[in-house]
Amino acid sequence: MRGLQEKLRALVRSGAGCGPFYAAVVAPDGEVVAEAANSVVSGNCSHDHAEMNAIRLAEARLGTWNLAGRGLVLYATAEPCMMCVGGILWSGISRVVYGVGTEAVERIAGFDEGFKPAWREEFAKRGIEVAGPVLPELGESVLEEYVARSGVIYKPR
Amino acid sequence: MRGLQEKLRALVRSGAGCGPFYAAVVAPDGEVVAEAANSVVSGNCSHDHAEMNAIRLAEARLGTWNLAGRGLVLYATAEPCMMCVGGILWSGISRVVYGVGTEAVERIAGFDEGFKPAWREEFAKRGIEVAGPVLPELGESVLEEYVARSGVIYKPR
Repeated sequence: MRGLQEKLRALVRSGAGCGPFYAAVVAPDGEVVAEAANSVVSGNCSHDHAEMNAIRLAEARLGTWNLAGRGLVLYATAEPCMMCVGGILWSGISRVVYGVGTEAVERIAGFDEGFKPAWREEFAKRGIEVAGPVLPELGESVLEEYVARSGVIYKPR
Repeated sequence: MRGLQEKLRALVRSGAGCGPFYAAVVAPDGEVVAEAANSVVSGNCSHDHAEMNAIRLAEARLGTWNLAGRGLVLYATAEPCMMCVGGILWSGISRVVYGVGTEAVERIAGFDEGFKPAWREEFAKRGIEVAGPVLPELGESVLEEYVARSGVIYKPR
């Protein structure tokens, strides 16, 4: 998680135009199947969250819409929003590890993360493990840096 | 809604490989900004639901991640799943009109549509209107035809 958040910090500082989130799909042997930053603003698509981008890329690389049965873990800067929770359900990801909780994301960046009551229990029912927050202060500091640099808060208004 | 579901039926019968869902983003003057079928299986991406595809295409055509303030309506074969509910929230769509309810989708096709309790109330809080089901028997008949033709039920397992 430390490496992932530091990679994101470097991207945010680079001015490449990504949102303040990063995600990676990792195999049980540690191989990174796919990784991606949020590209909502740079790509003109409100759905291009880091988690969605990483899963899409993993599926493209593996040539399947079905990631189940491979023990794949999704690491992400922050607790997934409602869209990404749904996207994880459809993908077959086995485990989710995240850095920053939704409360902190909404407080720091002002995003509306949707509504996903009891999502951990719902994931457990479906056999998907969840761990987090992991090193939350580190992830929060990257979010704060993004906001301080006047990064776009892409809320539809 | 009738035209949309009949277009979907023709696509399902054509053997083009789409899933049994169709969606369109329509402007207040009736112009179709974008329309798309579900392409999960044909495109090897578990996120390519009709609603997600239509919104992505609309944003690409309009050159923005932000569809808000345009009065755009999303028409869809079925009540949006959890991922699409989240995706609609991020997009700035103003109104959603759907054909078939989630209970019928899960009963007929066996999909897991996620968990989205009180999504109409949550949309209302955010100023997004919802209407449906509209002509549910028509939409259900297309879903039933898809299943009868042994269309892939893309559940990650």
